[in-house]
Amino acid sequence: MCQLLAMNANTPTDIVFSFDGFRRRGGLTDCHSDGFGIAFFEDNAVRLLQDTTACATSPFADMVKAYPIRSTNIIAHIRKATQGEVSLANTHPFMREAWGKYWIFAHNGNLKRSSTNDSEVKDFHPKKGQYYRPVGKTDSETAFCYLLEQLRQRFDECPDDKTLFTALCEICMEIRQYGLLNCVLSNGEMLFIHCDSLLHYIIRQAPFGKAKLADDDIEIDFGTQTTPQDKVAVIATLPLTNNENWQQFAVGEMAMFQNGNIIHQRQPENPFYPDIETGLNRAKQAL
Amino acid sequence: MCQLLAMNANTPTDIVFSFDGFRRRGGLTDCHSDGFGIAFFEDNAVRLLQDTTACATSPFADMVKAYPIRSTNIIAHIRKATQGEVSLANTHPFMREAWGKYWIFAHNGNLKRSSTNDSEVKDFHPKKGQYYRPVGKTDSETAFCYLLEQLRQRFDECPDDKTLFTALCEICMEIRQYGLLNCVLSNGEMLFIHCDSLLHYIIRQAPFGKAKLADDDIEIDFGTQTTPQDKVAVIATLPLTNNENWQQFAVGEMAMFQNGNIIHQRQPENPFYPDIETGLNRAKQAL
Repeated sequence: MCQLLAMNANTPTDIVFSFDGFRRRGGLTDCHSDGFGIAFFEDNAVRLLQDTTACATSPFADMVKAYPIRSTNIIAHIRKATQGEVSLANTHPFMREAWGKYWIFAHNGNLKRSSTNDSEVKDFHPKKGQYYRPVGKTDSETAFCYLLEQLRQRFDECPDDKTLFTALCEICMEIRQYGLLNCVLSNGEMLFIHCDSLLHYIIRQAPFGKAKLADDDIEIDFGTQTTPQDKVAVIATLPLTNNENWQQFAVGEMAMFQNGNIIHQRQPENPFYPDIETGLNRAKQAL
Repeated sequence: MCQLLAMNANTPTDIVFSFDGFRRRGGLTDCHSDGFGIAFFEDNAVRLLQDTTACATSPFADMVKAYPIRSTNIIAHIRKATQGEVSLANTHPFMREAWGKYWIFAHNGNLKRSSTNDSEVKDFHPKKGQYYRPVGKTDSETAFCYLLEQLRQRFDECPDDKTLFTALCEICMEIRQYGLLNCVLSNGEMLFIHCDSLLHYIIRQAPFGKAKLADDDIEIDFGTQTTPQDKVAVIATLPLTNNENWQQFAVGEMAMFQNGNIIHQRQPENPFYPDIETGLNRAKQAL
């Protein structure tokens, strides 16, 4: 299973601490060694660093630490290839432009294609888009293109955040019929998530305390690096620290973050919060 | 004036030698210190490294040397800002997807916008595109979006290279009415150029010899790094070496490269080859 990491903040914030733990899962503490990618919004532009080697040892991942980039919206992904060979074209996150904004997307899960063989799940082969088409061979990029295509077909201009959230919920509920869809999407203003197995988040705000990475012997005191107004939401497949209260999203839950707050949220009627083992198994069964 | 560098080859080739000389013009031997960008096609994917600091000293430019990326199509640009502030969103090259391929574009020149004041030249303000809209504030990204928009409006699928060349020629001739348009465009298969003041090229092939950078005391023997089948076209605003026979494109000339060869070319009726001073002045007058 791939792993996701995202950040949405009210002030440009670097992600070095969280990324330090996250990247160790790409080849060191876990086996997601088929590449990685991280996208930073810098105002309305995007800086995208990707590599097809293990995140733990990639020189492009070293750049994230050596030149900390401050951003209000960041999406990162470490890959365990399930569909599509290990290549740059198949490496998340993916980027497209819509309505004069860049949109960034990363996905964890597996959507059924003709190569898989599960008769209970429908095949995900959307027809060729008018606006967007995948360049690589992954179900993930196909889902991203389909999602943006649906938005563009519905709206001539980027809608307000409430309308956008409602549309994204509908499109994600449609896509998840084809398999497992944990995903994060940002246009540099809002950050949207859909949880289908495991996805956790924490909102760090004053009073800031100390945090200790779960994957490494590193501790940070956020109190020395922040102002009392800062608000930073961090979203990750699995909690990155072991001394903070991470919240878990329910299976089927969707949320939109802005300025470090959840501004829209939709929970399923009977929320189910799998434990980590169950969540990982759910992901494995979907492969 | 900004400067352009591009490469089109029949085998994945690194650009370290050419980029070494080129980047020195970004802040050391010349004054193009408002950022730089370089895009490498890796198969059908693109790796894009950009920075808003001078290319000569940027850590992202250091990456190009430290981890030589082999590619068959490369586009690089160093920027002297004329329109749009110094920001990542205004930094070339620009990228969009069309027909399931990434397209990369960089521009040197200046297209008249309402902020400039030259009554003989028409204003370049194309209407909002259906498919593509600029994210930043430059005339260059606006021209790129307009160019791709015109292609998408004409063709439902990517046309063959001859049809594509003819269409690109028509669109470039339309855009250049609004100002100065030296540009390079690639979709990872072909590389198209339009020359409007200064643009030079060289095709390196067997028997390979030695080359010496014009901007630095560095010499290379291509014979030790190549096979007899290799063919590498390098395109640059000004010749990068001082002991090779660079060819000059005429003002108004357009060409399409593939596998290191010129496969289509269109010259104006009375070709004019400005000397470097005249060419630079033409660029300055257009600012």
